[in-house]
Amino acid sequence: MTKGRLEAFCDGVMAVIITIMVLEMKVPHGASLEAIAPVLPVFLTYILSFVFVGIYWSNHHHMFHAVHHVDGAVLWANLHLLFWLSLVPFVTGWMGENHFQPLPVLAYGVVLLGAALAYDLVVRSLLRVHDRDSVIARAYRRDVKGNASVAIYVGSVLVAWFVPWLACLGYVAVALIWIVPDRRFERLLKENAEATHV
Amino acid sequence: MTKGRLEAFCDGVMAVIITIMVLEMKVPHGASLEAIAPVLPVFLTYILSFVFVGIYWSNHHHMFHAVHHVDGAVLWANLHLLFWLSLVPFVTGWMGENHFQPLPVLAYGVVLLGAALAYDLVVRSLLRVHDRDSVIARAYRRDVKGNASVAIYVGSVLVAWFVPWLACLGYVAVALIWIVPDRRFERLLKENAEATHV
Amino acid sequence: MTKGRLEAFCDGVMAVIITIMVLEMKVPHGASLEAIAPVLPVFLTYILSFVFVGIYWSNHHHMFHAVHHVDGAVLWANLHLLFWLSLVPFVTGWMGENHFQPLPVLAYGVVLLGAALAYDLVVRSLLRVHDRDSVIARAYRRDVKGNASVAIYVGSVLVAWFVPWLACLGYVAVALIWIVPDRRFERLLKENAEATHV
Amino acid sequence: MTKGRLEAFCDGVMAVIITIMVLEMKVPHGASLEAIAPVLPVFLTYILSFVFVGIYWSNHHHMFHAVHHVDGAVLWANLHLLFWLSLVPFVTGWMGENHFQPLPVLAYGVVLLGAALAYDLVVRSLLRVHDRDSVIARAYRRDVKGNASVAIYVGSVLVAWFVPWLACLGYVAVALIWIVPDRRFERLLKENAEATHV
Repeated sequence: MTKGRLEAFCDGVMAVIITIMVLEMKVPHGASLEAIAPVLPVFLTYILSFVFVGIYWSNHHHMFHAVHHVDGAVLWANLHLLFWLSLVPFVTGWMGENHFQPLPVLAYGVVLLGAALAYDLVVRSLLRVHDRDSVIARAYRRDVKGNASVAIYVGSVLVAWFVPWLACLGYVAVALIWIVPDRRFERLLKENAEATHV
Repeated sequence: MTKGRLEAFCDGVMAVIITIMVLEMKVPHGASLEAIAPVLPVFLTYILSFVFVGIYWSNHHHMFHAVHHVDGAVLWANLHLLFWLSLVPFVTGWMGENHFQPLPVLAYGVVLLGAALAYDLVVRSLLRVHDRDSVIARAYRRDVKGNASVAIYVGSVLVAWFVPWLACLGYVAVALIWIVPDRRFERLLKENAEATHV
Repeated sequence: MTKGRLEAFCDGVMAVIITIMVLEMKVPHGASLEAIAPVLPVFLTYILSFVFVGIYWSNHHHMFHAVHHVDGAVLWANLHLLFWLSLVPFVTGWMGENHFQPLPVLAYGVVLLGAALAYDLVVRSLLRVHDRDSVIARAYRRDVKGNASVAIYVGSVLVAWFVPWLACLGYVAVALIWIVPDRRFERLLKENAEATHV
Repeated sequence: MTKGRLEAFCDGVMAVIITIMVLEMKVPHGASLEAIAPVLPVFLTYILSFVFVGIYWSNHHHMFHAVHHVDGAVLWANLHLLFWLSLVPFVTGWMGENHFQPLPVLAYGVVLLGAALAYDLVVRSLLRVHDRDSVIARAYRRDVKGNASVAIYVGSVLVAWFVPWLACLGYVAVALIWIVPDRRFERLLKENAEATHV
């Protein structure tokens, strides 16, 4: 079973998600600053969500470079990840239109947490079909960033109801952690290439 | 005639379908639990529809691994399948917004039944251009799951008008039957590979 | 310059067009037959438009099998074709929602005529970069179907204002002419393969 | 790290952007000329935006022919470009619906300027990972068109508040400059091929 079509489908879904989110920014009927002002919080949320989907795509892209086999479980783990990501446009619109009120901020965090745990399931499903010495197994021996993200998401979801701006700060913090792509794969693939050439 | 571009187009359409469905979940204007409550039935339908499109993509993906040739008839059979799948977002929104009332539940079943019969037509169009000994011909000698699904859909459509929740139960049952990807192809392709290496 | 990425982009745009058209079928708020009745003319138009975009994709797919080179002119001719096709969802919604009244029926015909002439431009741009003996040049020595379609479209646009149902009949007639994929390429590519093997 | 999946993702996002823009043209409820008249300015803006996204895709397509390596920075530079392009449907709808009033015309220019500068960042990120003698480095030794575009955009943004139609003229002028695809790459790749064959 080849990984090509799985990558293509994931790319397609992420491309649509990242683009239809903009439809949640409703075009205002007036042409004044007052008319455009209510769009601002949706726009800020849009930037954050765009960065998150971009991070998922970038990490997915890096990880699948090191993937050799996929099976049915990998495929469904990916569909599960895409399910959580597909909810991002909805919570983006809801959080933005309601000016970062407690419940939508909490819902936004739940979706991000769901996506993070779903990504972890994709990793586990891949480890099951790869050797302990494979690049992908070595890359995930320690997953500091992944664990830190989940911890911050859980904290954000817990405080969202009481201090929504603190939860938002948590989301921004996770985005900043990940905006640098996962260099593990570049380094390990390079080491691997060198080792094979000795 | 190559299958690559056909796969790519089907992937593209299914990726858009699975993603734009989320636009049927209208972002509520309030930020309270009361505001979000009406979205819940649409959300449940969304999960079901996401799983159904995921199943079609997964089975299509598995089946096309074993495909060697495609012709004009295969191409139109695929477009016909995509037509029924493209109606999924509409019936998802209709069934969810009307809290599983008889007519939308019936319409949802008709679309699922249409997609199932269209998938069967794709299989038949492929069998016409493959040998009786090909992997694809052997995989479809017995199609228990496919026949069971059509039977359940027909039953669900018939009862939908009188007992809509029973019809919904039928849809969930079919989804559960299929959530395990079609292992026939993995097994048969493996057997084939072993047979050729003897 | 390779044709792969051009095909992929055209496939992507056509996949989105064929799928977002369904968003023009607004989900009715009621669950009764009276609530769904106004959707019927949009649904009929949706079927017609789905078939038209499917025909364009299928013919594009067949034609590009025989393409060897593309240049900047081919690329812009394709973008021009995609522009006309991108208007299909708009005229589909307009014609359907207004129950086939004269002006929307006329607009629908103008968009179909524009797409047909744009397809012709794509063919001409391809003929400029292929030999007179190439498969593509031989396939388009006579273009009966293409010329017939343009003639019917022109006729339909002219009568649309006075007898809209006759114009619609014209659109259906063109769809029926084309629903059989363009066998010229299959035949000529086969002849070519045989000629080279002599 | 291969460029294939990056190209595929960019193609996917641009294909969705260019197509969902049409959803900003709201289908009018009437079937008369009066009903369709308000759509005209949105339609004109739609044509302009379609041409702009087409130009970006075409230039991206040409440039990536000459690309040999990509790294994490190239990837994020591309996502940044896609972010600005994803705002095009929003400003298209806003400028069109408000009949080219000052603020939306200014916003349209800011988005085009952002996309132009983002494209420049993509070029710079690519130059960092290519030799000084590579085709891509030689192609961008002089970037007259790119610099002229940025200058016109800056001018248009500055005058948009006072003379919006002049700003719109600036946008049209830039589109006309670029509608001819970037022949530098075709010429340089050809020279390169000839040089290698000596």
